[in-house]
Amino acid sequence: MYRTHTCGELRAENKGQKVTLAGWVQKARKLGGMTFIDLRDRYGITQLVVEADAPAKLVETATSLGREFVIQATGEVLERQSKNEKLPTGDIEIKVSEIKVLNKAAIPPFTIEDNSDGGDDLRMKYRYLDLRRGPLKESLTLRHRLAHEVRNYLDAKGFMEIETPYLIKSTPEGARDFVVPSRMNPGEFYALPQSPQTFKQLLMVAGYDRYFQIVRCFRDEDLRADRQPEFTQIDCEMSFVEQEDVLGTFEGMMRSLFKNVLGVDIPNPLPRMSWFDAMDKYGSDKPDIRFGMTIHEITDAVKGKGFSVLDDAAYVGAIAVPGAAEYTRKQLDELTEWVKRPQVGAKGLIYIKLSADGSIKSSIDKFYSPEEIKAIADKVEARPGDLIFVMSGPAKRKVQTMLGVLRIEMGNRLGLRNPKEFAPLWIVDFPLLEWDDETQRFYAMHHPFTAPKPEHEKWFYSNAKEDLERVCANAYDFVLNGTELGGGSIRIHNADMQKRMFEVLGISPEDAEYKFGFIINAFKFGAPPHGGLAFGFDRVCALFGGSDSIRDYIAFPKNNQGRDVMIDSPSRIDQEQLDELQIDLKSAPEA
Amino acid sequence: MYRTHTCGELRAENKGQKVTLAGWVQKARKLGGMTFIDLRDRYGITQLVVEADAPAKLVETATSLGREFVIQATGEVLERQSKNEKLPTGDIEIKVSEIKVLNKAAIPPFTIEDNSDGGDDLRMKYRYLDLRRGPLKESLTLRHRLAHEVRNYLDAKGFMEIETPYLIKSTPEGARDFVVPSRMNPGEFYALPQSPQTFKQLLMVAGYDRYFQIVRCFRDEDLRADRQPEFTQIDCEMSFVEQEDVLGTFEGMMRSLFKNVLGVDIPNPLPRMSWFDAMDKYGSDKPDIRFGMTIHEITDAVKGKGFSVLDDAAYVGAIAVPGAAEYTRKQLDELTEWVKRPQVGAKGLIYIKLSADGSIKSSIDKFYSPEEIKAIADKVEARPGDLIFVMSGPAKRKVQTMLGVLRIEMGNRLGLRNPKEFAPLWIVDFPLLEWDDETQRFYAMHHPFTAPKPEHEKWFYSNAKEDLERVCANAYDFVLNGTELGGGSIRIHNADMQKRMFEVLGISPEDAEYKFGFIINAFKFGAPPHGGLAFGFDRVCALFGGSDSIRDYIAFPKNNQGRDVMIDSPSRIDQEQLDELQIDLKSAPEA
Repeated sequence: MYRTHTCGELRAENKGQKVTLAGWVQKARKLGGMTFIDLRDRYGITQLVVEADAPAKLVETATSLGREFVIQATGEVLERQSKNEKLPTGDIEIKVSEIKVLNKAAIPPFTIEDNSDGGDDLRMKYRYLDLRRGPLKESLTLRHRLAHEVRNYLDAKGFMEIETPYLIKSTPEGARDFVVPSRMNPGEFYALPQSPQTFKQLLMVAGYDRYFQIVRCFRDEDLRADRQPEFTQIDCEMSFVEQEDVLGTFEGMMRSLFKNVLGVDIPNPLPRMSWFDAMDKYGSDKPDIRFGMTIHEITDAVKGKGFSVLDDAAYVGAIAVPGAAEYTRKQLDELTEWVKRPQVGAKGLIYIKLSADGSIKSSIDKFYSPEEIKAIADKVEARPGDLIFVMSGPAKRKVQTMLGVLRIEMGNRLGLRNPKEFAPLWIVDFPLLEWDDETQRFYAMHHPFTAPKPEHEKWFYSNAKEDLERVCANAYDFVLNGTELGGGSIRIHNADMQKRMFEVLGISPEDAEYKFGFIINAFKFGAPPHGGLAFGFDRVCALFGGSDSIRDYIAFPKNNQGRDVMIDSPSRIDQEQLDELQIDLKSAPEA
Repeated sequence: MYRTHTCGELRAENKGQKVTLAGWVQKARKLGGMTFIDLRDRYGITQLVVEADAPAKLVETATSLGREFVIQATGEVLERQSKNEKLPTGDIEIKVSEIKVLNKAAIPPFTIEDNSDGGDDLRMKYRYLDLRRGPLKESLTLRHRLAHEVRNYLDAKGFMEIETPYLIKSTPEGARDFVVPSRMNPGEFYALPQSPQTFKQLLMVAGYDRYFQIVRCFRDEDLRADRQPEFTQIDCEMSFVEQEDVLGTFEGMMRSLFKNVLGVDIPNPLPRMSWFDAMDKYGSDKPDIRFGMTIHEITDAVKGKGFSVLDDAAYVGAIAVPGAAEYTRKQLDELTEWVKRPQVGAKGLIYIKLSADGSIKSSIDKFYSPEEIKAIADKVEARPGDLIFVMSGPAKRKVQTMLGVLRIEMGNRLGLRNPKEFAPLWIVDFPLLEWDDETQRFYAMHHPFTAPKPEHEKWFYSNAKEDLERVCANAYDFVLNGTELGGGSIRIHNADMQKRMFEVLGISPEDAEYKFGFIINAFKFGAPPHGGLAFGFDRVCALFGGSDSIRDYIAFPKNNQGRDVMIDSPSRIDQEQLDELQIDLKSAPEA
């Protein structure tokens, strides 16, 4: 062992001990002939002192140290005269008698400080240096702690962690698969799992009763910010359960994570909101309930006053932004431009200012009397000082979604979204199916294994589109601060119902047999009622850490082009490898 | 919840309680008008009784139940008159008042019993049914338990579990990589990791000090029995350590696994054996030390007596098989054929029988006097009743290896390899490099990141083949009962030494830069001394379970052709997928 103690553990009570530490030189500075060195390791920073009258060789070594040199230092623990209260080791310093340079370091391309001067690209390229910085160390420590707590909680509840395969079969329903050519079976491919969904259901069929796994999943999607081609799930499944059992179990897990990791108490039981309420009030199936500003429908209140934009709309909704009545014309124009961007897609933005002094000003003054405006304001539960935004359109959910996006933006601008405040809830009662106008077919809102609510089965077996649209599922999402952290459902456990689902989704019997034959078949041999859910672990970590970027919670993430710029991957492979796999590149890659 | 209790928890003290159970019908039998049903779940089996005078509908339902039907049964806990001591629930039975069939089951293709009547192929195809059998349930439970213990132990020792990426870069040094075409970067490929070796070293460079991960690894090798294309490692790395620290830490981990999971005490400290001793005495770098029968060199004792086979040999070795002197001519002939198979590769087998009555009979009687034979027997430490086998050849290690294989075979035949007896040890002091005659180059015995022993560095920088062959490494293997469960080494942490290693291995600077540039570069920025190891987790599970087949310890394994016959993978993919990936198949797969 190169050390007797870590750089984080010495205290005043160690005074007088002879110790050896090893670590990185955070900084070294000369002061009146003495050299002060901040020595850093994972556990902390300890100050080393080489005194002016130390042996010449030692002084010389100390003087030669650069940032990030790796050294081993031996000396005596002294109590400091001027203590540093910011450091846990700030009561002591080491009077060094010997320094050994274990490894030199080139000058790092950016500073290894909590706030680095390096840009994103540079820090990604030298990720191993970026990971030395305090904030990233805290992120990964939090991640380890969370994974460990999850495992302890679930183990104690009788869940078994069972590893499912990574080389599975391509079933292109939903996102794209990453595929892996098989050398031993030329022309055939494995796929990397988008989730272990079918395997965990097979484990229920196999009688494992309570399964979980913290597991990597893969999706070959065009990457948006905060998406990674590989990501980690806390994947869970239980047998002989109803929705209530699943919600109770995992609410308990999240409660214990909040308590044990953050020391935060979350409500018991957690609030629940139906998908319909979430859409109506928050314009989102992942509402941020840390602040109000909910959506109110005002369709009836605005109709028939000669304002054709609203008269022609199928739905008119509004939000009241607290205390924003004094927004300037410029701010309102800027917000109008903001909602017109394709990401939101609004045609315009109607506003009503309710000044604190009782005066009202709006962009629709000429169509509505002050009393009518007042009635609208009452409907929106606006108070003096509030700014009301109104949006409308031919499709209710679309308008609600736009208002929801605007609501979040206003929450951000007004500082209502404190990352240290946690407001989790369950969203329940999702529609089972979503109709897609473009492809003229239904898609599964969760996935094709989700069961309809028993009381909606009559509609599920109907062929009328309206009936199918009414079917709800015992599906549920765990939402925190406007982010979906997890979701799941009670599954289909009956082969005939599963076949019906594929039929509803327009998957031909042949296709269903080819892609999912094994699970339909498995259901014939005694499948228990079962259900489960999965949490996006990267997101759980980020939100627990008070961040909205998952990248800081992944040791070696990829960039938005799916590249790992540190190892320069993906990369070309040898012709020999291609030949062995019996594949050709369609076009030669650029050199 | 579909049940009040599991099928494993009711005892006599629950007498009189009304309970609801859910599970699978293990069997149902009629006996004098009563129906007895064994109801099974993960936790056990409980006997249900439907009495002859129960309501007709209940009797009818009970009579209709087939094997593996999933049912829910409600009734009263009765104390049994004739208790079943083999079942933990054997003191009670449930007098059933209601049965609900939750799911019917087709007749399973094989019996779901501890000893099934199904063949391997059939059981692999219906793996979800095979997994219902007791032995497999025990295997996966053991696996979960072991993983959990490993994590608790390492967490308590300050190790952080850090997830490393699965989509990495192909570095074809060693086994073949599985590759993954990148759609977003046409012509380029990710590779699946053979191990997280470079990433864990980068984590040491990043200052994480103590890392571990229970992680999937991938190797596209031609599969032998007991090899899987994907397998799981307990992967570990530590900074500022010497070999002694690594051995101590992981010896502690294994000791705690043996104690906490199996209740077995293993020696403290564990025995250690140098690689050279292991080869000399056991003809293997993974010796099974549960039994003796060690190899003795008898080269000097047999030379110069006119027997050219031995006179010409560079090395002659022998083992004494205890109590086998009475082997028949037929048995000896059969063993001779056995060692001549290409898997062993011997030219023949010389024997000496030391009968219990003192008489000696051998296949070399005409070249050696009884005294000379006696001298050989003494050298081999043979006792009356033993059978000595002698082998020879031009290459010492090759002969030793053949004797080692014969020794294991004799151990098996004589029942000396009790799977419930555990004899772990460390093999240490491996050669750093292995010369390959065919390609006329050195290969790394562990891997190219293993450091030479400091005292051997002088030879490492020499260009003489003899010098390089003498270099040993601080490398170590954890061996249990003739199987290597894990191995590791102290790593190179210096960029120049790493470059020298690539040079010794005949990897050009350009190639090294292309494949490993990021790690050579990382070493320039302050890499700490570090080392670690990895355990093959599938093997750990199998050996702890007293089995030599890892397949029973993997929920969904692949067969020897790398196929998952349950999901029928790998499989063809759509032309659309190939087009998106911009690859072509070299030859059309057969329809």
